[in-house]
Amino acid sequence: MMDFTSDNTSGVSEKIMQAILKANAGSSAAYGVDPFTARASALLSEIFEKELAVFLVATGTAANALALGALCPPWGAVFCHARAHIFEDECGAPEMFTAGAKLVGVAGEAGRIAPSALRESLAAFPRGAVKQVQPAALSLSQATEAGAVYDLAELTELCRIAHDAGLGVHMDGARFANALVELNCSPAEMSWKAGIDILSFGATKNGALACEAIIVFDPAKAASLPFQRKRGGHLLSKGRFLGAQMAAYLENGHWLDNARVANAHAARLAAGLAEASGVRMPWPRQANEVFAILPARADAALRAAGVRYYDWSDRDFGEMRRDGEVFVRLLTSFATQAAEVDAFIALARG
Amino acid sequence: MMDFTSDNTSGVSEKIMQAILKANAGSSAAYGVDPFTARASALLSEIFEKELAVFLVATGTAANALALGALCPPWGAVFCHARAHIFEDECGAPEMFTAGAKLVGVAGEAGRIAPSALRESLAAFPRGAVKQVQPAALSLSQATEAGAVYDLAELTELCRIAHDAGLGVHMDGARFANALVELNCSPAEMSWKAGIDILSFGATKNGALACEAIIVFDPAKAASLPFQRKRGGHLLSKGRFLGAQMAAYLENGHWLDNARVANAHAARLAAGLAEASGVRMPWPRQANEVFAILPARADAALRAAGVRYYDWSDRDFGEMRRDGEVFVRLLTSFATQAAEVDAFIALARG
Amino acid sequence: MMDFTSDNTSGVSEKIMQAILKANAGSSAAYGVDPFTARASALLSEIFEKELAVFLVATGTAANALALGALCPPWGAVFCHARAHIFEDECGAPEMFTAGAKLVGVAGEAGRIAPSALRESLAAFPRGAVKQVQPAALSLSQATEAGAVYDLAELTELCRIAHDAGLGVHMDGARFANALVELNCSPAEMSWKAGIDILSFGATKNGALACEAIIVFDPAKAASLPFQRKRGGHLLSKGRFLGAQMAAYLENGHWLDNARVANAHAARLAAGLAEASGVRMPWPRQANEVFAILPARADAALRAAGVRYYDWSDRDFGEMRRDGEVFVRLLTSFATQAAEVDAFIALARG
Amino acid sequence: MMDFTSDNTSGVSEKIMQAILKANAGSSAAYGVDPFTARASALLSEIFEKELAVFLVATGTAANALALGALCPPWGAVFCHARAHIFEDECGAPEMFTAGAKLVGVAGEAGRIAPSALRESLAAFPRGAVKQVQPAALSLSQATEAGAVYDLAELTELCRIAHDAGLGVHMDGARFANALVELNCSPAEMSWKAGIDILSFGATKNGALACEAIIVFDPAKAASLPFQRKRGGHLLSKGRFLGAQMAAYLENGHWLDNARVANAHAARLAAGLAEASGVRMPWPRQANEVFAILPARADAALRAAGVRYYDWSDRDFGEMRRDGEVFVRLLTSFATQAAEVDAFIALARG
Repeated sequence: MMDFTSDNTSGVSEKIMQAILKANAGSSAAYGVDPFTARASALLSEIFEKELAVFLVATGTAANALALGALCPPWGAVFCHARAHIFEDECGAPEMFTAGAKLVGVAGEAGRIAPSALRESLAAFPRGAVKQVQPAALSLSQATEAGAVYDLAELTELCRIAHDAGLGVHMDGARFANALVELNCSPAEMSWKAGIDILSFGATKNGALACEAIIVFDPAKAASLPFQRKRGGHLLSKGRFLGAQMAAYLENGHWLDNARVANAHAARLAAGLAEASGVRMPWPRQANEVFAILPARADAALRAAGVRYYDWSDRDFGEMRRDGEVFVRLLTSFATQAAEVDAFIALARG
Repeated sequence: MMDFTSDNTSGVSEKIMQAILKANAGSSAAYGVDPFTARASALLSEIFEKELAVFLVATGTAANALALGALCPPWGAVFCHARAHIFEDECGAPEMFTAGAKLVGVAGEAGRIAPSALRESLAAFPRGAVKQVQPAALSLSQATEAGAVYDLAELTELCRIAHDAGLGVHMDGARFANALVELNCSPAEMSWKAGIDILSFGATKNGALACEAIIVFDPAKAASLPFQRKRGGHLLSKGRFLGAQMAAYLENGHWLDNARVANAHAARLAAGLAEASGVRMPWPRQANEVFAILPARADAALRAAGVRYYDWSDRDFGEMRRDGEVFVRLLTSFATQAAEVDAFIALARG
Repeated sequence: MMDFTSDNTSGVSEKIMQAILKANAGSSAAYGVDPFTARASALLSEIFEKELAVFLVATGTAANALALGALCPPWGAVFCHARAHIFEDECGAPEMFTAGAKLVGVAGEAGRIAPSALRESLAAFPRGAVKQVQPAALSLSQATEAGAVYDLAELTELCRIAHDAGLGVHMDGARFANALVELNCSPAEMSWKAGIDILSFGATKNGALACEAIIVFDPAKAASLPFQRKRGGHLLSKGRFLGAQMAAYLENGHWLDNARVANAHAARLAAGLAEASGVRMPWPRQANEVFAILPARADAALRAAGVRYYDWSDRDFGEMRRDGEVFVRLLTSFATQAAEVDAFIALARG
Repeated sequence: MMDFTSDNTSGVSEKIMQAILKANAGSSAAYGVDPFTARASALLSEIFEKELAVFLVATGTAANALALGALCPPWGAVFCHARAHIFEDECGAPEMFTAGAKLVGVAGEAGRIAPSALRESLAAFPRGAVKQVQPAALSLSQATEAGAVYDLAELTELCRIAHDAGLGVHMDGARFANALVELNCSPAEMSWKAGIDILSFGATKNGALACEAIIVFDPAKAASLPFQRKRGGHLLSKGRFLGAQMAAYLENGHWLDNARVANAHAARLAAGLAEASGVRMPWPRQANEVFAILPARADAALRAAGVRYYDWSDRDFGEMRRDGEVFVRLLTSFATQAAEVDAFIALARG
C-alpha cells in the first residue's frame, strides 16, 4: 500500500527497534532515572554542544503542551502561526497545559511567521494592560505545517523580536531533523544559538516508536517541568524504553540518516510532480512534506490505485486551488520506497 | 540484582515484545484507527462479555486522570482511599484532568475503603449545598496500594452506596490481573457486574512496555473521552504499538499467566517471611505485593546484599512499626525468579 | 469634567441608589436567597415573558465567563467576533471559566459577525475530528464593541446557523438595554425568541452600582451554574444588594428610560459630529457609542479642554483612519448632560 | 427577627453607606484607578505600617482564592485546617484559582492548626518527590471557623515552620478585625510581623456592603495579581464604590469599633449561655462566634420563637455532642442588639 498520509504511518526503524529489544534485559529503575535515559540526555548535550535539561515523553502534543506550560502562565499569550499544529491540531492541549492561556495566530507564508506580522500582533497586547492576556511565548515550527523551513537569519530575527518583548521562545521540532539536514547547519545553530529557549525535539515521525524530548536550553528554567510532566500523566514508568529509543535515534547519526532519506524522497517526488502536466506546486519543497495542486483526474487515478494521502483542499495555505483541482499533502519518511515515489509520479502524470 | 522495588522495574514479557516487533511491518493508520487497536478492543469486549468503549494510553496516571475527568466536573468531588495512588502519587493529575475537582480521602484498612467511612464522607457533602463541591465519583483501587483485594461483595456494596448517592464509580486496576486471579472470578464480575462504570485496566506492571486501557462499560458515557485524551497529549500517533501490546497481553490468557506467576512469587515470599524469626506481617498478602515489618538487622543484611525494595516506614498504613523495625514493601512480577524469592527469605531469616 | 471614556465612569442612578439604601434595613438571608433577589428574578421573568433561571453577579466579565462555562467544555470552541469583549478585553476569563476552551475570532463589520464568516469558521472545526476543539458556543454582543446593533433577522439567522451546528448561543448584553430601545422590540424578541440560550444582562453600564444577571432561558440547562458561580467567587454574601439593584433597575421601565437618555445623547453627539467639518463617521451610530474620525487639530482642542475619551487609533475596526486623523470612541450614559454633548461638538468643530 | 445565622445577614453600617452615597457624585475613572481606591490603599498602608500592594474585590472567596493563586502553582499543595473555609466552604474556588492545586487538611483544636500536625503534614510531601504535589502555601484563618483566635506566638511559630519549608503564608482574615480587637495588638503584629505574606482582609462581615482587600506585604510578589483578578472577573468597573467602602471602614477606627461591638455581644451571649442550665460550651468564645451545645428543649424553644442560627451538629469540631443535644453556631455583628442577645439567653435558659 502506498501511503503518503503522514510520516507517522511508518513503523520503527530497525536500529531503534533493536535498541528497545536490548533494553529489555533485566530490571531497571522506573520513572526515568535509568541508564538509558541518562545516555540519551548525555547524547543530546553532546549534539547540542550545551548542558541541557531533557524530559522524554511519548507524544509530540505532550512535548509541545508541556513546553508551553513551562513558558506561559494562564493569563499569558502564545504567539504562533495561524496554521501551526499547536493552534489547529492538538485539541486544546496547549490551553490545558497552560491552564487556559490564549494562542494568537500570526500570519505568514507557507506556515512561516512573518516578522512584521509578529510585531503587529505583539503591539496588540501591550505589556501591563490588565484587560489583555500578557505576551509570554513565541512558538515556531521547524519545519512548518507547510513543510517550509526557516533559515537561520529568520529564526534569529524572530527570536530577537520575541526576546525584546520579554517572551520565551519555543520551537516545535516534530520534524527538527528534516529541517536540519535541509539547512545543513548544526543543531545548536538551529536552536539555542538562534535564540530558542525550549525545543520539542521529535523522534517519532523520523523512526522512533513513541519518543520526543523536551529540551530546555537553560536548565535553571526547567525547575517545574518534572512536576508538570508527572501531573500530565507523561512520566512513563518503564522509562528505559524512551531512553533506549532516543539514544539509538541519536547514535552514529541515525537520526540524520533517516531524515536525509525522507527528504530525498520528498525532493524526488516534488521534482517529478513539478514536471507533470497540469500539476502545480504552491511553494518549494524543503523538508519531507510535498504540497501539490493536482488536476482532479490525477487525484482520481491515484485514489483508484489505492494511494493514500490527505486532501487539504479545505485547509490550504493561500487559496491557490482552482476549480477542478485538489490541494494535496504528501509525506515521506525513512521507510518510504523509491518505487513508491516513482509510482506516485507516474500515476499523477496519467 | 534482586529488585523488589516495583513491578514496573521489570521489562516486557517475551510475547508482548514479539507482538511489538510483528506490528512493525509496513505502514499503518495513525492515531488509533489501526487494526491492532481494533483487535485489542475486540478482545477486551470478549473478555469482559460486553460492548465497550476502549481508549489505550501509555501510563496508568493518564488512564486514571482521564477516567476521572470523564466522571467528575471541576466542581465535583472524587472519593478515594486516603492512601490511594490517585490521592498521593500522581502529583495532582486527577486535579488537572478534572480541571480542579477535590479528592476526598476516605479511611479503611489495608487501602480498602470501609463502607461506613464512605457513607460518612458522602454525608459531609450534601447534594445541592452550593458552598461545597458536589459528590461525583468513587474511585476504588483493585488491588489496593497495600496489596489488598476487595472481594465481590465489598465491591458491590461500595458501588451501590456510590450509585445511590448519584456517583459514578472508577476502578484503578493498575493491578487488575493480580487481583482477578486472586479472587478467581471473571473480569465482568470484578468490574461492571459489581457496579464499576469506568476501569483503568493496567498492563504495564504485568508485562507490557507502556500500555493501559481506559474501559468505559457504558459506551454512551464515553463521548468526550476521545477529545480529552487528545487534549491531554495521550493519543499516540503510532497507535498500532499500543494495540499490539494490549492484544498480545490478552491473547491466550497471557495476562492471567503473568499475574499468576507474580502472585505465586508473592505468596511464596510472604509465607517464607511469616516464618522468619522477628519478621511480622501487617496484613495478609493477596496480590503481588508483600508488606512486612523486618527487624532492622534483617533489613541491613538485605541492603548489604544489594537487594532493592522500598522502605515505607514513613508511609505505613497503620503505625504498626515499632522501634528497631523497618516497614517494607516488596513487589513481585512475571519476571521475578524463584531463586530471588528464596534468597530474600534466607537473608531476612539471617 | 467632560468624560466620554465609558458608560461605567458614571455613577449610580438615583432610583437604584435609593433601593440600595432601602434594602439595608434589618437582617436578610445571605447568598442570594433573600426577597430582593427573588423580586429581581420575578421581574426578569415577567419582562422576558418566560420562566428563567437567573444568577446575579457583580461584573460583566463574570457574567460572560460563567455563561460560557455553562455552554462550553474545556475541549470546546466559542465563536465570537474577533473584536468582541470576551475575545480581547477580559484577560482570558472565558478561557479560565471554561477550563481552557478556545475562542475563535470571526470577522464582520462594526463588530457584527457576518453569517458567511460564521459558516466558514464552523467548517474549519468538523464535528468529531479528534485533533480539533469541538464547536460548542456562539457568543454575540448586543450592542457590539463598535456600538452596532444586530437586527432581529440577523440575530435569528446567526442563532439558527449555530443551533444547526449543535452550538449553544450566548449574548453579551452588557448594553442590552441600549440595543433594545434602538430596535424598539421586546426583550423576548431580542433574546430567546431569536434563539439566544444564555444572556449576560447588563445593568452596571446603565445605572447600577455593580450588577449583572446571567439569564438562562432553559432553566434545565442551568443546573451547574450555582456551583460554578460560587466556585468562581461570584456569589455575594450580602446578595440582597444585588437583588435590590436589579429590581430597581427594572421597575417602572427605569432601565429603558436610562438607555433612552444615553442613546439620545449619543444620537445628538453623532449628528453634531457628522456635520462638523473634517470629522468623518466610520459607521452609523446605533446605541450609546459614537465612533468618529477626528482631525488631529480637533482632537488636540478637545484634549486641551480636558475632555476625556479613548483614542482607538490602534484598534480601529477597518483601518479607516488616515494620517493626521484620530479614531475615537465616545460613550454616553444616563448621566451624560446635554451641555457636555454640545460642548464636545463645539470643540470638535473648532 | 433574631438572626444569629451569620455576620453577613446584617446590612451595611451607616458610615459605610454614607460613603457609598458620597462617592456617587460625578464621573470617576473605572477599574480601580479612582481616588477612592487610592485613599483606601493609603489608609491600609498607614494602618499596617508598611508599603503594600492592595487589590479590592467583592467577596471573601475571591480574596482567598486569588491570594492562594498568587502563592501556589497548579502542582502545589496548600496546607490549611481540615475545617477551614477554603477547605470546606468555597466549592473548590482555591482549586480553580490555582488551576488545580491540592488542599491538605491539617488537624488542630477549634480550627487552629497545631504546629506538630503541620510539621507532620509537611513531612508527607517531600520537596522534589515528583509523584507528589509540592508544598507551596500555608493558609491560616484568623479568627478560625470555630471562632478561635491564634495568639501572636502561635502565628509566629506556624509562619516560621512554613517559611523554613519554603512555603508562603496566607491569612484568611474574613474576621481579621474581630480577632485583632481580641488580641489587642497592632494590625502589623497580627500579620506581616508574624510572618504573613498575603492577607485576605475582610470588611463585608463587619459592616461593608461587599468589600475585601487582598493585601500583599511584599509588593514585588504581587506582579501577576492584577491579571489574575481581571481574569477571575473580580475587577469591578465602578471601582470607586469598593474604594469608598474600604476607606470609610478604616477611617477613625470604624472597623475596630464595629468589631468591638460584635465581640462584646458574643462575649455577653457566651457568658449568659455558660450559666444556663444544661448548656455546655465546647471551647472559650474569642471573637464574634459563639459555639454552644444546647439541650434539645432549649433549641426547640428558640426555634419556636423564630430565632435563626445554624445547627452544626453534623459538623462539630470534636464530636462533643451527646444524644439529646444540639451543637449550634451563633454569630453576632456590629448590628446585633443587646436585647436580642438577652432574649436568646432567656430562651435558652427556658
